Formats: sequence, C-alpha cells, structure tokens
Amino acid sequence: MDRLAAARADAEDPLRHLRGTFSLPAGVIYLDGNSLGALQPAVAERLRAVIDREWGHGLIRSWNDAGWVELPRRVATRLAPLLGATPAELAVTDSTSANLFKALAAAHRLRPERRILLTDDANFPTDVYVAHGLAELTGDLEVRVVPTFEVADHLDERVAALTLTHVDYRTGRRHDAASLTAAAHEVGALAVWDLSHSVGALDVALDAWRADLAVGCTYKYCNGGPGAPGFLYVAERWHDQASTPVRGWFGHARPFAFDVGYEPAAGAERFLDGSPPILSMAALETALEVFADVEVAALDARAAELTGLFIRLVDERIGAQVEIVTPRVAAERGAHVSLRHEDAGALTQALIARGVIGDHRPPDLVRFGFAPLYTTRVEVVDAVEQLADLLASGAWDHDEFRVERTVT
Amino acid sequence: MDRLAAARADAEDPLRHLRGTFSLPAGVIYLDGNSLGALQPAVAERLRAVIDREWGHGLIRSWNDAGWVELPRRVATRLAPLLGATPAELAVTDSTSANLFKALAAAHRLRPERRILLTDDANFPTDVYVAHGLAELTGDLEVRVVPTFEVADHLDERVAALTLTHVDYRTGRRHDAASLTAAAHEVGALAVWDLSHSVGALDVALDAWRADLAVGCTYKYCNGGPGAPGFLYVAERWHDQASTPVRGWFGHARPFAFDVGYEPAAGAERFLDGSPPILSMAALETALEVFADVEVAALDARAAELTGLFIRLVDERIGAQVEIVTPRVAAERGAHVSLRHEDAGALTQALIARGVIGDHRPPDLVRFGFAPLYTTRVEVVDAVEQLADLLASGAWDHDEFRVERTVT
Repeated sequence: MDRLAAARADAEDPLRHLRGTFSLPAGVIYLDGNSLGALQPAVAERLRAVIDREWGHGLIRSWNDAGWVELPRRVATRLAPLLGATPAELAVTDSTSANLFKALAAAHRLRPERRILLTDDANFPTDVYVAHGLAELTGDLEVRVVPTFEVADHLDERVAALTLTHVDYRTGRRHDAASLTAAAHEVGALAVWDLSHSVGALDVALDAWRADLAVGCTYKYCNGGPGAPGFLYVAERWHDQASTPVRGWFGHARPFAFDVGYEPAAGAERFLDGSPPILSMAALETALEVFADVEVAALDARAAELTGLFIRLVDERIGAQVEIVTPRVAAERGAHVSLRHEDAGALTQALIARGVIGDHRPPDLVRFGFAPLYTTRVEVVDAVEQLADLLASGAWDHDEFRVERTVT
Repeated sequence: MDRLAAARADAEDPLRHLRGTFSLPAGVIYLDGNSLGALQPAVAERLRAVIDREWGHGLIRSWNDAGWVELPRRVATRLAPLLGATPAELAVTDSTSANLFKALAAAHRLRPERRILLTDDANFPTDVYVAHGLAELTGDLEVRVVPTFEVADHLDERVAALTLTHVDYRTGRRHDAASLTAAAHEVGALAVWDLSHSVGALDVALDAWRADLAVGCTYKYCNGGPGAPGFLYVAERWHDQASTPVRGWFGHARPFAFDVGYEPAAGAERFLDGSPPILSMAALETALEVFADVEVAALDARAAELTGLFIRLVDERIGAQVEIVTPRVAAERGAHVSLRHEDAGALTQALIARGVIGDHRPPDLVRFGFAPLYTTRVEVVDAVEQLADLLASGAWDHDEFRVERTVT
C-alpha cells in the first residue's frame, strides 16, 4: 500500500472521526499509545474544572455536590463495555500491581486447598513479583513459571489459579483467553487475566470467556493519563464469596457510617480501598467518552489492520535487517509489533529524534504500538519509510543515540 | 479575644504570609482542611503544565524529560521534614489503606513468632478493616481492639505490632507517640503509626520517636488534592529486612531492566509498586513547597493556638449547649476540635449554609479543623459567632438541613 492508497483508506475508515478528539503534537508519529495514551482536549478541560471549580471552590463539598463519591462506579460503567463485563463486576482503583495482588489473594481463598499459582515466562515481570509476594506472605503457595507455549500442559488439579497477561508486552503475542480459561476450569483452577495491553484496543470479552478475575491499567489504550487508575474484575458468580485482603472504607457497604465492623460492599466494589484519586478518576471518566459508540470488535479489527499493514511494509521495505517477533496471524497478536535488532536502543532513539515515537524493550526489541482510536495508515506508511531510511543510511549508529534512558 | 484582637494577632503571626499562597473561596470560613486541604494557585498552574505540556505534548518522553520517573523520590524528599524522617525512609505511593496493609504485613514478617496486632477502639475504622484483612489472609494473626485509654496495658510479648492512629479522627485526641512506641519496644513489639490527621499540622518526629513503620495521607493538611497519594515510612534500621507483599516494577532495584527476578529497591522505595499517579504526584510536589521554610514545631504551636482559641470561645459564647469532646490540654489534641450535639448532622449543614464549613461525624459530632497554614484567628472568632447565633436562634432545626449526605 502506498501513501496515497493509505490516505484514501484512512478517509473511508468508519472510526476516522475519532482522531480529531485527540491532541497529538505536530511533527510526531506517535506509536507508543500502548505505553501512554494521548491526551484529549476534553480531558484537559475536565481536569481544569475539577481543579479550579470542584477542588478550589467546592472544596470538601464536592464529594457530594460534584459527585466525587460516585466516580469509581461511574468510571466502571464506562469501562465495562470495553471488557465485556457488567459495571458491578468492576472496581476502578489502585495500581494494576496492587489489584493483581488482591485478585490473586481472592483466588487463593476461593481455592484454599490448592498450592500453585501458574504463570508463563512471557508475563510482565511485575505480575510475577506480585505472585511471589503473595506466596511469601501466605507461606502456602508456590509460583510456577513455565514457557509460554506450554502453559496449558502444566494445568492440573494442584493449580489454584492460572495468571497470565493477555498480550505479551514484548512480542505482542496474544493468548487465546477463552481456551486457556476453559482449560483452567477443566482442572478446577481459576483464570486471572492481566488486560493492560488489551483493554481499549482489542476484543476483550471477560464474561464470554468465563474469566474469574482480571486486572489491567487505563493509561495505555484507554488514554486515562500517566499513572491512571487500574481496574479489577470479579465475575458475578464469585460475588458472594470473593474477598479482598486490602480493605478500606470505599470498599465498605456503608463507607460514611464509619462502622468499626467490616461489611463488604456488593460485587466488585468491595475491592476498592482508600479514597479514590479524584483527578485521575475524573480524567479517565472523560477519556472513556470516546468509546461510547465504538464496538470492541471494530477496535480489534482496526488494530489487526494497522499492525498487519506495518508488518507487510516492514517485510517489503526493510526485510531481513530486522526480525519481526510478533505473530503474523492477526488473531494471535495484540495492537503492537516488535522488531528485533541488535542495536535496538540506539535505533529507537534515532527514530524518536526523527519524530517517530516507539519504545525500546531490552535487550534487543524496538516496539511500535498502533492505537486503533487515533493511529492512521498514513502514519504507518511514513513510520516504515523513516525506519527504512534510517537503517539504509546507518544514521542510527551514533553515540548521541546511545543515551542512558530509564524509560523507552 | 475579640475580633479586633484576633485581627491584630493574625497580623503579627510569623506564618501570616502563607495564607496568601492558597485560593480559598470568598464568603467561606473553611474549617475542613483536615478532610481536604485547600488549593494553591501554584498547584493549579503546575497541573496545567503537566497536562498540556508534559502529557499532551511530551507524551511518553516525559517519563524522562519531565522527570516523572523521579517524582516519588522528589516528593519523599519534600515530605520527609514534615515527618522527622529521611527521604530514604519514605515511599510516596498508593492509598493509606494499601500502605497500611503493606506496613502491617512487613511488621508481621519482622516478628514472625508473634500473633497479635494490637489497636484501639479510637482508630479509624479502615485501619481496623485492614488489620483484619491481613489476619484473614495469613491465618496466623489475631486483631485485638482495646479501649484507647488502656492500650498500653495490653502490650505484652505476644504482640507483633501496635498500630494506632496518632490523632483520633473524631475526638481529636492525640496519642503520646514517643511513649507508646517505647512501651511497644519494651515488650519487643513494633509500632506502626497512621499520621493522616497529623502530617502537615503537628510536630511529627518519626525518627526521634523510634517508630518502626508509619503511613498517612497527603490530602488533608498537606493539601495534595482529593485522593492524593499516601505515604509509607520504614525506619532505616529495618531497611535490610523489611519486605512488601505488594510488589511492582517501581519498587524494583532496576525497574526498566524488566528483570524476571525480583530485587527490591533500597530503603523504603521497595514499597512502591505500580506506575505512580503522575497528576497527583506532581500536584503534591508543588503543594509541599509552602512548607519549605516552616518548622513542624511552628505548625504545631499554631494548631495549638487556633484550637485553644476555638475551645475558649465556645466555652464563653456557647457553653453547655454543646460538649467539647476534644482534650483541653494542647499536647493531648491534634489540629481539630469536635463538639457533641444531639442534632449534629443538621447543625453541620446549617453552618455550611452560612459559609462555615466543618463536617459531621456520626452520630453526634460536629468537627472543625484548623489548618495551621491558612486558618486565621479572625475566622475562628467568626465561626464561633456563627455557631452561637445559630444555636441561639434555633435556625438549624429545619428539615432542609436534614439531608442525606454521603460525605460530611
């Protein structure tokens, strides 16, 4: 596909109007929405109102008058369709790490006789740290990390929970969540999914998958802003039994009665704990508006098309200079594509210097995310051209691009 | 003290210039800074820069270029003097509830042979929920809740940790933290303090008290904004041994190496977990600037004076119509004063309608907070006049003030 054909296809795309709701900086092709989603002017405006009017003027009254108390529930209502869940199955709160801790602890209590937390070596490292942290605290769990392609072979009746990240943060490989959930259930284990690299970009269907628990973040494809709140899903069938070890007044049935006795709120809301971060919650509520008329299947299809176009163009224009480590079958990948190159760090920085923002995942991957809400086909074409030109020129191979960066 | 004398004293107060750094709404006497601290224009300006420039324009690059990665450490550096701690002893992260969970779990692992978490019946209910949540998860702990005046009598060699809130959120009674910490240490127990109602208003001296662990929030007297991040303190002598069950990449020694193996960061920083909430962290960093040249002893002295003035004026002008439940000895109280009245809810709402904002703590308390950074003596005088007038007129005794409010 050449640039003209790409522009024509962009102009006919049913989601084309959504790009205009984002404010992307001029001169930049932003292919890192899978790390930090872009800002929408409506979000900036909402935040100004929260800061100046609600906090500054309303002060404590805004918990009632501006509806701050209801924010976690309202955000859950907007997030639910992106996850194939009901609002009562969602708590929007805390970091993804803290939520995973709570979810695994809940799974442990739902399967108290079982001793194994099973995960794979493609999981995000934090998720494995969290599992080990829980195991060390309870003293009666073992974390088993197995090769990602063999995970189903390790499911047996000793496994309390299978905990996986839906899309590999490095390779972009997507697990078949419905099948693996079914396989876990066959041996009586629970399935706990991390959807950080999926929600807002892919066809996530927690209820249809029969998932038990799930977590994820909202600062990637949901565009909630840097460090936006995480979420925790509990399937309705567990609402009577699921408990959280990290309790707080916002997860109480009557938070403002200040009862000394703990009585969990109904549904997933019991997984809330302390006072919600109002600025981030308000930003997220507004950021999710753009999804109101979008089906997750349409996002998934556009992600498949953008990633597919990128892969095809890399094959054509760059070929063997890089290795495409992301699956070529669309259903087996998420919304990002990673290229292996021995000097990936310098290559990433050189691309950023040219205005093409991806990121580096050590040791040897350059990663490109394709946000279905705002990335265009023309940007994909231009990004590949920049990469091809850079590789052909050798211009990335300079000390200026070998900087110590903590992120990217 | 009459209004003129109050105005004269305000004009001579060494902290008088600080009031001007806050934007308080006209026509309001804000005596609820102990629930939600006021906005500073500098904070609003900082947030605009973070939203528009750093997120909107800088996007993912701002983790490096705008120093987002360093925010937890920078905020810890500003918060440390308010706590009598070193920056390395502080992690600014998560909700107070989640931090208390991590602190109690750490205490449990530092005292593995002991079975009791001791607390008092004056503690904030959430703190008791958290202790029970940990006990249920580990299965080998008992939470003992004893009358607040008898807490020292229940310390013995079975106690793993004494966990108390420094200032009672209802009565305003302040524990003698140094003595109780010493008493806990005498029997080999650890002392874990919740400083939510103290930090930024009182003379907190964690290192001097020899406290072991502590937590607190920053949205009250620290003015970080609604739902601002909490903090967790770990005394330096525990840095080699203290561990957190809730792990995440920001608490790793090398977060961006994406090691599958967990290696905790040095000091309290290991108690960070997921990506920090950047908007809230930036707001807090700027909000703390106002404390740069203020000694905690000066804050404590001003809190003592303001609360003392309020108590004296209530005695004089209102007398037996209300009961002052807050201690009359300054060293035994925090920065808020609570009055008992059988119709406290309606009284609170009627006061708010007159522009005097305190809050209601069920069943029968009206609570007034005196933020030493911005509450003035004139406001104290005016608030008591309003309250006296209201009580004398009976104007609070109306259905319009008997509203169902979730907060306040």
